[in-house]
Amino acid sequence: MQSVSVEITQECKHVESYPHIEMDESYELEVSSSGAFIHANETWGAMRGMETLSQLVYPVHHRQLRINLTRIADNPLFPHRGILLDTARHFISKETIIQLLESMAMNKMNVFHWHIVDEQSFPYQSAVFPALSDRGAYDPVTKIYTASDIREIIHEARLRGIRVIPEFDTPGHTRSWGLGHPELLTPCYGEIEKDGFYGPLNPVADSTFSFLEKLFTEVMQVFKDERIHIGGDEVPLRCWASNPSIQNFTIKGNITKIKSVYHHFEERYAPYLRIYIACILSVGGGAIVWEEAFSSGAKLHEDTIIQLWKGSSLFGTAIAKGYRVLTSSCWYLDHMELDFASFYRCRELPYGAFLTMQRLSDQWLGGEAAMWTEHVDEEGLLSRIWPRASATAERLWRPVNQTFYPAGPRMEEQRCRMLR
Amino acid sequence: MQSVSVEITQECKHVESYPHIEMDESYELEVSSSGAFIHANETWGAMRGMETLSQLVYPVHHRQLRINLTRIADNPLFPHRGILLDTARHFISKETIIQLLESMAMNKMNVFHWHIVDEQSFPYQSAVFPALSDRGAYDPVTKIYTASDIREIIHEARLRGIRVIPEFDTPGHTRSWGLGHPELLTPCYGEIEKDGFYGPLNPVADSTFSFLEKLFTEVMQVFKDERIHIGGDEVPLRCWASNPSIQNFTIKGNITKIKSVYHHFEERYAPYLRIYIACILSVGGGAIVWEEAFSSGAKLHEDTIIQLWKGSSLFGTAIAKGYRVLTSSCWYLDHMELDFASFYRCRELPYGAFLTMQRLSDQWLGGEAAMWTEHVDEEGLLSRIWPRASATAERLWRPVNQTFYPAGPRMEEQRCRMLR
Repeated sequence: MQSVSVEITQECKHVESYPHIEMDESYELEVSSSGAFIHANETWGAMRGMETLSQLVYPVHHRQLRINLTRIADNPLFPHRGILLDTARHFISKETIIQLLESMAMNKMNVFHWHIVDEQSFPYQSAVFPALSDRGAYDPVTKIYTASDIREIIHEARLRGIRVIPEFDTPGHTRSWGLGHPELLTPCYGEIEKDGFYGPLNPVADSTFSFLEKLFTEVMQVFKDERIHIGGDEVPLRCWASNPSIQNFTIKGNITKIKSVYHHFEERYAPYLRIYIACILSVGGGAIVWEEAFSSGAKLHEDTIIQLWKGSSLFGTAIAKGYRVLTSSCWYLDHMELDFASFYRCRELPYGAFLTMQRLSDQWLGGEAAMWTEHVDEEGLLSRIWPRASATAERLWRPVNQTFYPAGPRMEEQRCRMLR
Repeated sequence: MQSVSVEITQECKHVESYPHIEMDESYELEVSSSGAFIHANETWGAMRGMETLSQLVYPVHHRQLRINLTRIADNPLFPHRGILLDTARHFISKETIIQLLESMAMNKMNVFHWHIVDEQSFPYQSAVFPALSDRGAYDPVTKIYTASDIREIIHEARLRGIRVIPEFDTPGHTRSWGLGHPELLTPCYGEIEKDGFYGPLNPVADSTFSFLEKLFTEVMQVFKDERIHIGGDEVPLRCWASNPSIQNFTIKGNITKIKSVYHHFEERYAPYLRIYIACILSVGGGAIVWEEAFSSGAKLHEDTIIQLWKGSSLFGTAIAKGYRVLTSSCWYLDHMELDFASFYRCRELPYGAFLTMQRLSDQWLGGEAAMWTEHVDEEGLLSRIWPRASATAERLWRPVNQTFYPAGPRMEEQRCRMLR
């Protein structure tokens, strides 16, 4: 093969943008005796075509490389195909994150969902609230992500057509926030007085919301994406219920269920995100939330994206109510008993219906394989993620209705390719 | 600390030997302000003491290293503490095997059980039967273990006080043997004629036994250890039952159950191993077999060691019948659902009784963590084995009756030490 030509029909003025939910990743690829030719509407599609081209090359004996004549017209069916990485249970270095981005590109994945902080640590270095990482990171100097680290990661991601969506999980999963800013958390009470423990973010103090507003204004500017994941999972209500100021709030507001305090939190908090994203980034965007924010009954803006992780029981309801949905329940990489085949099969998802029902293909945006890091650190990270996440990637690119068996050898070949 | 002195009371004439089941691994270690002093009866104990000494050193700030004053008298309770590595499902390079040996030494493990061949491939290069690896290896040049590779591995193991016990699994698990020597396998029959498939080694042909005799004579000279593992697990009987020459054999011998053909095989085969080991290596030794060779009812020589892998139901029977036993059921590293805690707890094993019953401490020799390689290759091997096998190592060194929780942080520290 003598040459590779790439033709992109997109106008140049859009070329500098960041990857986004509506980017066009379709491409056509022709390998003829004279060379390879890639046509794409946008640079994002050209990237996917280049990736395919590189994967068509195969080694034969005597260190020769071969490629077969072919014509391919290809496009993903789901626009959101991601990996979630938790960098709070174990800190993961910038270098490893960039390796992860490269491995995602080999699998044509396009969203890096960065679960950057959690109970255990707060490695995000904030300019407006430096105490968050000074006190909340595992180490305030070596175990943090500076603005320049994040810029570099976003730059590397963009070169591979990958969005970087940060998650700042609230109001639960916030113990580490309290190390730098104890005033944010709810003091829990025993029968008479404070018991020394702290619960979720304080949902009734105005100061909580003004803090979040300042923090998220910064986060939006740093991260560039039209979406911010604001968590909302696993919010324990006991501590809120024990706290006198929250009890007063419920009495005044005639709120009978403590769960409604959570609605109050989400309803006061999530909408402003959408407004700020529109204002600061000049794009329509908003929040992604874990499924509990939806199942709790909070009134979420229709533009909110619901991420399912506890099975698929809410899938139909969320779609019926008009929400857009991400699925991740089948693809929890920390569950060692889920093997490659179960990742691939993921029987609970209606792949078949996706291909035939307009509503589903409009609202089911895709999914993510989730790498929670309680039990894995830098050392074993990539070998924990791959090859299983290749099953997620294939299913989200083109969820044809097929059994696992023909996919097995294909995935094995992909693994070997990735190791080369 | 200024100096480390090591005193070994063993006479020099024994120093050149290979590690063996009765080696003395006990040591005493004293760290005083003047230096460290290790006393051991044999070099093997001195090695364990040096390992402990290196693990007592810990880093503090400013790149300084510290060690605390201490006195330790230590010895293992089980003499056989091993890792099984399967190099037939995936070929594992010599370099990685040596890395594994080094990591075993950090955990004071002393047996490398080398499951060198199986159905899938025959990487052992035999001088007397070169066709075995020429035809049976994944690649006859790059995916084999030459005599010099094996010598080097045994040398590296010896320097770390680790025995190398080869396993040539028979009569089942032998498909790859048939690629070079089809005459060894039993042709299976359909209703009328051969169906094209092959079963286990042919148990009624004299040629099978003369082949094994020649092969094992070589193996004993190459591997040096007083034990050879001859497998005996998962022998399918259907093919034997279908074969006319085996049917004739059972009729002539008035054998009514096909299972007895298996007894015949084991009874004809295992005893000569013991005799040859005594003759060639001048030590009392013999076979290790998987539990089916025992549970099948074959008359095994009393010196045979039974390795349990299917749970612990045969543990009591084997001990009662006077056999020595190895346990490995709790420690199957390919079972991803077995986490560190379950490796550590291994509730089915009578650790408590071991400490109080003479019979148990005489006959329960130890155990092995087993790394079968259907689902893992070179790339992820060491991170699949560790840190879980550290639980096996600790349990076999000193199985004090304690819960998992205090062990957790200790194991985590050990993992960090191994990664440094």
